[in-house]
Amino acid sequence: MSKSIKVFAPASVSNVGPGFDLMGFALESPGDEIIVRRKNRSGLFINKISGDGYVLPTDPKRNTTTVAIQSLLDKYDISDGLDVEIRKKMGIGSGLGSSAASSVGGVYAVNKLLGLKLSKDELLEHALAGEIIASGSLHADNIAPALYGGFILVRSYDPIEILKIQFPRKLFVSIVYPDIVIKTCEARKMLPLTVPVRTAVSQAGNAAGLINGLLTSNYELIGKSIIDSIAEPLRSKLIPCYKEIRDAALSAGALNCNITGSGPSMFSFSRSLSEAEKINKVMKDAVRRSGYKSKSYLSGINRVGPKVIG
Amino acid sequence: MSKSIKVFAPASVSNVGPGFDLMGFALESPGDEIIVRRKNRSGLFINKISGDGYVLPTDPKRNTTTVAIQSLLDKYDISDGLDVEIRKKMGIGSGLGSSAASSVGGVYAVNKLLGLKLSKDELLEHALAGEIIASGSLHADNIAPALYGGFILVRSYDPIEILKIQFPRKLFVSIVYPDIVIKTCEARKMLPLTVPVRTAVSQAGNAAGLINGLLTSNYELIGKSIIDSIAEPLRSKLIPCYKEIRDAALSAGALNCNITGSGPSMFSFSRSLSEAEKINKVMKDAVRRSGYKSKSYLSGINRVGPKVIG
Repeated sequence: MSKSIKVFAPASVSNVGPGFDLMGFALESPGDEIIVRRKNRSGLFINKISGDGYVLPTDPKRNTTTVAIQSLLDKYDISDGLDVEIRKKMGIGSGLGSSAASSVGGVYAVNKLLGLKLSKDELLEHALAGEIIASGSLHADNIAPALYGGFILVRSYDPIEILKIQFPRKLFVSIVYPDIVIKTCEARKMLPLTVPVRTAVSQAGNAAGLINGLLTSNYELIGKSIIDSIAEPLRSKLIPCYKEIRDAALSAGALNCNITGSGPSMFSFSRSLSEAEKINKVMKDAVRRSGYKSKSYLSGINRVGPKVIG
Repeated sequence: MSKSIKVFAPASVSNVGPGFDLMGFALESPGDEIIVRRKNRSGLFINKISGDGYVLPTDPKRNTTTVAIQSLLDKYDISDGLDVEIRKKMGIGSGLGSSAASSVGGVYAVNKLLGLKLSKDELLEHALAGEIIASGSLHADNIAPALYGGFILVRSYDPIEILKIQFPRKLFVSIVYPDIVIKTCEARKMLPLTVPVRTAVSQAGNAAGLINGLLTSNYELIGKSIIDSIAEPLRSKLIPCYKEIRDAALSAGALNCNITGSGPSMFSFSRSLSEAEKINKVMKDAVRRSGYKSKSYLSGINRVGPKVIG
């Protein structure tokens, strides 16, 4: 029986174009590392958090990772003593599903460490419990990709229904994370309560088009369909270099370029690694020209979700 | 050079669940018959209309079929003399794309008769010109299925983009057309101008789910996704036996049951011909119990669109 486990839990892109609140996909990198160690005394503790700039709660009752784990322990009436270490490897508030990665990593690690043999479907509700603490509302389009891997459609929230969507073997992701602070809850407050029917129809058309493009490996269709008519027109105003990033990505061959989550990170899809590298560079340059710093990531779509790395 | 041609042009189901204004599919039957005959004198004339209960305009400048044909003749500067006969085989105002069938049949027939060799993409704008005369607005979710056959997604209207969507080999359609009059333009006036964002998200989720279900032959998903959250909640009030038809179809094994077009016809999908026959019967019975007459149709999805039959 092993004393500890170390898990990688992936970042994810959510609100993928017309998939606002509906679609997300997992990244190969970056991803958080969650270490869980057995202890002789009972109780769940956080013994270390790194890479968070001291902003994450160290109180296990308020921290995403431990809230998710506690939900799991409570359900199965487990009282093992556990210490949790959280190594953040992505920006908090980046739009890359930071809290989802930490939440998923926690329940995945405990499930493996204690040999609970719970399925991902069984882990989902606990990971969501952690995410709700962080974001204040139930949105599964980061949690589900981080947990299941792949490209996810959350078709329904009541009851929750997660669908894994096939996608082309060659699909690369370029991400730039400008050094701008956008709070998810504030980005959400910007959203209108209603939209014109024609906007709703257009969003549904693009959502349908994107799924068809992914399943038929129609890159042109994927690109044309990655349009969010609901949130992006408003949220783009929070990113001062939005247009510059998007124009640069498109001119470098990106299939399209969109905000991930509520931003400020933006992602582009492309067909090849060399294109993705070029797009990454021009996106980063565009941010720099606008006077901001940034981080950038280049990744494929992660097909497996979290994994044990130690 | 042949003197005349007779064409079958299919009825179609439109507003397919979450595909309001976006998705439609062609039927193997019923379908209109359009006969076009060459004449020595120039000009386009209607020499006979049957099966319409004397409601369709006989003035070529106001009739869907001839307006579509005239649009085509004008574009290619053709002055051949043509007589058109229209044999309506489906109810006008049934929700089964009656005007689209007549419009598509006209341009398809003339294209073949005169050997113009225009592609379906080239015929589309002329068929749409006919449809606009009938419905007063540009909606391609009947025209495109009638013209191209198959299951169609109109991803975009500006510019117009038609996508053929793969669907399971075994997918049967049961239709009941209750003897109730609903005018498309009035059904359209009922629609709200705006919808809550959560409704728009739900519609997009189901549109994405339906496309995924069709491409992966996931019947359960197809059934669950055929929900229209925008138009159907209001339009169902115009069909006095809506709930009775739907309940009967579902209890007989239908994947789902929805309004086609703006009604009053309703359609169900099912996996087998025997199920489809049973569903047809119970839908018809439900209408009868509500005190209305009805017609019913049983069909597969038509993969080819219009065809020459004489």
